[in-house]
Amino acid sequence: MALDRGIVGVEQGPWTRTWSSDDALIYALGVGAGQLDPTKELAFTTEYAHGVTQRVLPTYAIALGQFGGPPLKLGDVDYTQLLHAEQTLTVHRPLPVAGTIELRRVITDVYDKGKGALVVTETTGSDPADGQPLFATRSSVFIRGEGGFGGDRGPSVDFAVPDRAPDATLRFPTALNQALIYRLSGDRNPLHADPAFAAAGGFERPILHGLATYGITVRLLLGEFADGDPDQLATVDGRFTKPVLPGEELVVSAWRDGDSVLFRTANGAGDIVLDRGRLGLTG
Amino acid sequence: MALDRGIVGVEQGPWTRTWSSDDALIYALGVGAGQLDPTKELAFTTEYAHGVTQRVLPTYAIALGQFGGPPLKLGDVDYTQLLHAEQTLTVHRPLPVAGTIELRRVITDVYDKGKGALVVTETTGSDPADGQPLFATRSSVFIRGEGGFGGDRGPSVDFAVPDRAPDATLRFPTALNQALIYRLSGDRNPLHADPAFAAAGGFERPILHGLATYGITVRLLLGEFADGDPDQLATVDGRFTKPVLPGEELVVSAWRDGDSVLFRTANGAGDIVLDRGRLGLTG
Repeated sequence: MALDRGIVGVEQGPWTRTWSSDDALIYALGVGAGQLDPTKELAFTTEYAHGVTQRVLPTYAIALGQFGGPPLKLGDVDYTQLLHAEQTLTVHRPLPVAGTIELRRVITDVYDKGKGALVVTETTGSDPADGQPLFATRSSVFIRGEGGFGGDRGPSVDFAVPDRAPDATLRFPTALNQALIYRLSGDRNPLHADPAFAAAGGFERPILHGLATYGITVRLLLGEFADGDPDQLATVDGRFTKPVLPGEELVVSAWRDGDSVLFRTANGAGDIVLDRGRLGLTG
Repeated sequence: MALDRGIVGVEQGPWTRTWSSDDALIYALGVGAGQLDPTKELAFTTEYAHGVTQRVLPTYAIALGQFGGPPLKLGDVDYTQLLHAEQTLTVHRPLPVAGTIELRRVITDVYDKGKGALVVTETTGSDPADGQPLFATRSSVFIRGEGGFGGDRGPSVDFAVPDRAPDATLRFPTALNQALIYRLSGDRNPLHADPAFAAAGGFERPILHGLATYGITVRLLLGEFADGDPDQLATVDGRFTKPVLPGEELVVSAWRDGDSVLFRTANGAGDIVLDRGRLGLTG
């Protein structure tokens, strides 16, 4: 039990992240834009084409907020026991194609889940020009072996998909090199590229980034429910339940629910890999 | 007839190009490293893995030399009539993973091919620290409609593959998004990404960069004949004969010939797309 539970309330930042038009293109390719048809999704994959202006996939905000800042100090924790558990994004204003943002992070909760602890951090990105928020992310990591300290279990999530067939089923065969492209957006954890490291973690080969699965899923949902318009994304929430191997097919099941879309993503074998998904669209 | 034939001997430069480790990774992904098996070719696709040190594919030198310099001034030429015709690379010293080079270019020849003119340029890259050459490239562009001026036809190439079955046949199914990744290494010609531009040029959809086909071919040949060791490449030469559409399979036929490998690359239909190939290996 080496997790420092006194970290709740610790604030870090501000730090800045700058990105270029090319960085946004690389992110889009990492989450599979244009992969099945290079003549579609051109707004995300090229800086210019006839009748097309470059735009940024909104989930790029999570990648921008995730790296480049001070390390998250959790105490004397075994980092091989960390799993990305949940990820939320709230969009206040669309990201520009290139720019600089100011980031701040706060640890909001440490929950006792019995078999482990759940550490929740919130990161906000704001425009350095006017201080106005662009987005906020909430990210939870589950740390195996750090639970059982008699703490609050945290809120239970009330989530159920409607008792009907999905309104849409979206399929995307991830590429074998999906993680090699995605990692260029910042997450260089060797678990996603180094076979020896992945084997030490008990995986047959390097696994896909959870946030790649997340970004692919949101891209597909925006294509289906928002005509591919990234500005219609208001919020996303989802929980990672199983790793994905590059090359596996992702199958997103989605149900319209007013301005929301409920979803879950399975791998080709039908196992849910991203669960309790909810995407909020601007009215 | 608006090609300025007085351009022979015009020298340009020096200009500098700087690249990062990530730039080298993006180039490698653009020419398909790790695409069929992400656990192979790790030296080209990751900056670090157990037992692996990052290295640079030697054909990246051509991409470095091709862009970032002053424009090639050919006179009042219709640029839609330009075709990349031939490309040679001579390696003097392996490229570092990241660095800065100094580039110089000279127009060496303008040949009269009847239906068009062939303009030959040579670009050399040298180490700014010691002035020593790292590589030289020779690139020919064919300009349709600019021939027939009574000029020298230029040397004819004596090339024949041996009268036996290839010593190796190497297959690589290009990805549908191959050009979208490759273009991030510098060649933003909209012919490779913009459907409307490609249609205006008479193509059903954007075509793959000739230098992507070239880079893929050399990567496959180094894998087969040099254990994937990029430092064994001394020279490459090849002539582009037909465009490739992203998603087509490339089939490289290769014949060992002493320290050389003769090759040609066909598309899935068997049409030669890269001909008169010769790869020289260090002894």
